[in-house]
Amino acid sequence: MTDCQADGEGANSPMELYEKLNAQGEKVRSLKTAKAEKAEIDAAVQLLLKLKVDYKQMTGNDYKAGCPPSENVVMSDNGPAADGADDEDTVDPWNVATSNAKGVDYDKLIVRFGSSKIDQELVDRIEKVSGQRPHRFLRRGIFFSHRDMHQVLDAYEKSKSFYLYTGRGPSSEAMHVGHLIPFIFTKWLQDVFDIPLVIQLTDDEKYLWKDLTLEECRRFAVENAKDIIACGFDVNKTFIFSDLDYMGASPEFYRNVVKIQKHVTFNQVKGIFGFTDSDCIGKISFPAIQAAPSFSNSFPQIFGGKKDIQCLIPCAIDQDPYFRMTRDVAPRIGYPKPALLHSTFFPALQGAQTKMSASDANSSIFLTDTPKQIKNKVNKHAFSGGKDTVEEHRKYGGNADVDVSFMYLTFFLEDDEQLEKIKQDYTSGALLTGELKKILIETLQPMIAQHQERRKQVTDEMVQQFMTPRPLNFNF
Amino acid sequence: MTDCQADGEGANSPMELYEKLNAQGEKVRSLKTAKAEKAEIDAAVQLLLKLKVDYKQMTGNDYKAGCPPSENVVMSDNGPAADGADDEDTVDPWNVATSNAKGVDYDKLIVRFGSSKIDQELVDRIEKVSGQRPHRFLRRGIFFSHRDMHQVLDAYEKSKSFYLYTGRGPSSEAMHVGHLIPFIFTKWLQDVFDIPLVIQLTDDEKYLWKDLTLEECRRFAVENAKDIIACGFDVNKTFIFSDLDYMGASPEFYRNVVKIQKHVTFNQVKGIFGFTDSDCIGKISFPAIQAAPSFSNSFPQIFGGKKDIQCLIPCAIDQDPYFRMTRDVAPRIGYPKPALLHSTFFPALQGAQTKMSASDANSSIFLTDTPKQIKNKVNKHAFSGGKDTVEEHRKYGGNADVDVSFMYLTFFLEDDEQLEKIKQDYTSGALLTGELKKILIETLQPMIAQHQERRKQVTDEMVQQFMTPRPLNFNF
Repeated sequence: MTDCQADGEGANSPMELYEKLNAQGEKVRSLKTAKAEKAEIDAAVQLLLKLKVDYKQMTGNDYKAGCPPSENVVMSDNGPAADGADDEDTVDPWNVATSNAKGVDYDKLIVRFGSSKIDQELVDRIEKVSGQRPHRFLRRGIFFSHRDMHQVLDAYEKSKSFYLYTGRGPSSEAMHVGHLIPFIFTKWLQDVFDIPLVIQLTDDEKYLWKDLTLEECRRFAVENAKDIIACGFDVNKTFIFSDLDYMGASPEFYRNVVKIQKHVTFNQVKGIFGFTDSDCIGKISFPAIQAAPSFSNSFPQIFGGKKDIQCLIPCAIDQDPYFRMTRDVAPRIGYPKPALLHSTFFPALQGAQTKMSASDANSSIFLTDTPKQIKNKVNKHAFSGGKDTVEEHRKYGGNADVDVSFMYLTFFLEDDEQLEKIKQDYTSGALLTGELKKILIETLQPMIAQHQERRKQVTDEMVQQFMTPRPLNFNF
Repeated sequence: MTDCQADGEGANSPMELYEKLNAQGEKVRSLKTAKAEKAEIDAAVQLLLKLKVDYKQMTGNDYKAGCPPSENVVMSDNGPAADGADDEDTVDPWNVATSNAKGVDYDKLIVRFGSSKIDQELVDRIEKVSGQRPHRFLRRGIFFSHRDMHQVLDAYEKSKSFYLYTGRGPSSEAMHVGHLIPFIFTKWLQDVFDIPLVIQLTDDEKYLWKDLTLEECRRFAVENAKDIIACGFDVNKTFIFSDLDYMGASPEFYRNVVKIQKHVTFNQVKGIFGFTDSDCIGKISFPAIQAAPSFSNSFPQIFGGKKDIQCLIPCAIDQDPYFRMTRDVAPRIGYPKPALLHSTFFPALQGAQTKMSASDANSSIFLTDTPKQIKNKVNKHAFSGGKDTVEEHRKYGGNADVDVSFMYLTFFLEDDEQLEKIKQDYTSGALLTGELKKILIETLQPMIAQHQERRKQVTDEMVQQFMTPRPLNFNF
């Protein structure tokens, strides 16, 4: 219990800890309301998560606001709750938080969000329909959840095509490797199915949510577009747009935004996104802008005004609330519901408890990092599942499930057998933490260098071309 | 008290009438919530207003929800409370209601809204600066309230120009004479000051508020534009735009919308417009769209990107809530506050208690009415301030203050002396109701016929020209 007391900052009873948690929760909320510095909020959230872990250790139960511990609580003295997935993972477009070192409990999220698991049967079917070996993100459950993917494949088998829609919120110039996940996967989908792709850069959203000017957001959109283009998208099949530009260039897009806005109440967005009466009206109406690209007639230049082309959205699961709303509205305005493929979160170097932050240079590997920076960051910051000493590690083995270097390799190492061998060796203790990190460094360095090389080739003219509303090489 | 009982539908005591009023108020609210037929709501509102008048007659006090009549209320037996202006005039962009037959108490509205009265000094100054005789709407207090008009004139005297912005919500094809008031006055302002004018057609608003399709709203916008153009606007000085078109044609306009949306909270629009959690997010964010044309850089084609050209908005006073909000936001986003000129409401034929309705053909004279329809409507529906019999009228005289035919003449009869003589004759009893109505009919018939003639000349190409974003004949 010593650790627990230390973590709980001197709490001597479950009730005392419970009250600390209440106070800390309140503090997080008020910092967020006051739009405090990101670092300050992060620190407060970290402490909150820590207190929650302590609380579970001390009481055996998950902390729940409004439910104080019962008098005769069983004081638990289990070790750190490695299986401590609780019901309180926070997953929405602005916050992802869990107290579990393995990260969010995705199976519970599927139940909570009402989506479907991407099971082996679906992976096999994608392989059959596309005629291609499934991408490693599918083989390894990184894209783990879906909505209506079978329907998309049914139609595709009957020669009814679909289009892809994904996006990014350009909150800074700097993108990290985690930001590439949806784009890497979307590129694969585009290649194997040969379909159009629209990429939304929500510069208006970033203006509304962050302390940034419109000009900054617009500039970040263009910089981010360069990194996205560097993923290898085909300009003849891909339209990238900034909301600040495209809204003012397409009456059809605005018409869909207004249609959606007419069919969603404040009560609904309050329930889905947690908006409050103090939120600006821009935030409140923004979800309609992220929803609109799900409907093909938002892009008459591509789909010739057709409103019934099926949309498939690959995105991280935290974006699902937008598309639950979209799917709810779609039939009421006479449009097909978009289908979805959801990915897990890319963990921060410090561990899988939180989503990474583009504003903390040490929280991830950035696309601008030098080989030396990559090496230093992995060695210094990547949370290790190894033991404290070489002797212990050799004897007990490491824990790959919480080891960030291993997690990163599941995202970027293509060879399944090699990955499996690394896991076995690390778990058995044959592979040391330093050696594991070295494998990751040697995987990331050339990958990032190649990205930087491709990005250099992306000219302003190319960006302009990708971002010009125009027909693509498809007939609809 | 017999009349009173009849009006109060058999209420025998103030408390009974009070309870009837509560029930009727509740009924009006529930009809509005249920989006009942306009006619049904109107009937319920009419009964509510009637009950309020009865209540005041019976108790000597204004009805106030939540304040039941005291036990020892003095039963009043005065005649109809012709001076019964109460504090409960409802004036917002969607509802105008008063229990006073003379109409809304505009002096109280000035105090409530915090605007300034257009006094003789300001009228004289407009005459001096423009070098033109003030428009009858100014001479007669039809434009009765303003914000910052002296500032506009100060700048104009120093050769710093300004621009005009007014608008219309195109809820149907049919416009009535009342809808022309802001346009007639705006045209006069444009002529005497020689300045650019932008006219917003809020077809998106009508789509959000009414049971109409986007296509209908867009079509109504074009039809209404024809009536507006028929007022004689100069295509070289006037830009008319539909929101559904212009939002998708001008990134600068959308940027201003987003800027405003970032700086207004739901709490604020709730307070200003009475929105509730059940309102759609389109309504909640719409006020920013009506605000945006107040800022000159929303029209880069006209003002070359300049953001500091002063805007002057002539409009009916019910639109002021939008611009109170706009003026609150303006300094926070670095723009000048728009100035305003507010008009009174144009009364319905049935009386000044309510605003007219474009959906009730008998509530006003429509721009499409034939001479015969005009004659019939005035004779049949125009509320009369005359006495019941010719004998009584000759003896006691009529009441011009509540007579709708006389009110209409104050709007449309140019000759001040003639108008004054009509008033004197009517008040003395020398002029009978039928004779007064005849003067109005003979004023309206040629006016409407000329409007129809001018409207016929308006081609689709002309509409297209007015509605194309383009430079106007001004250098900024």
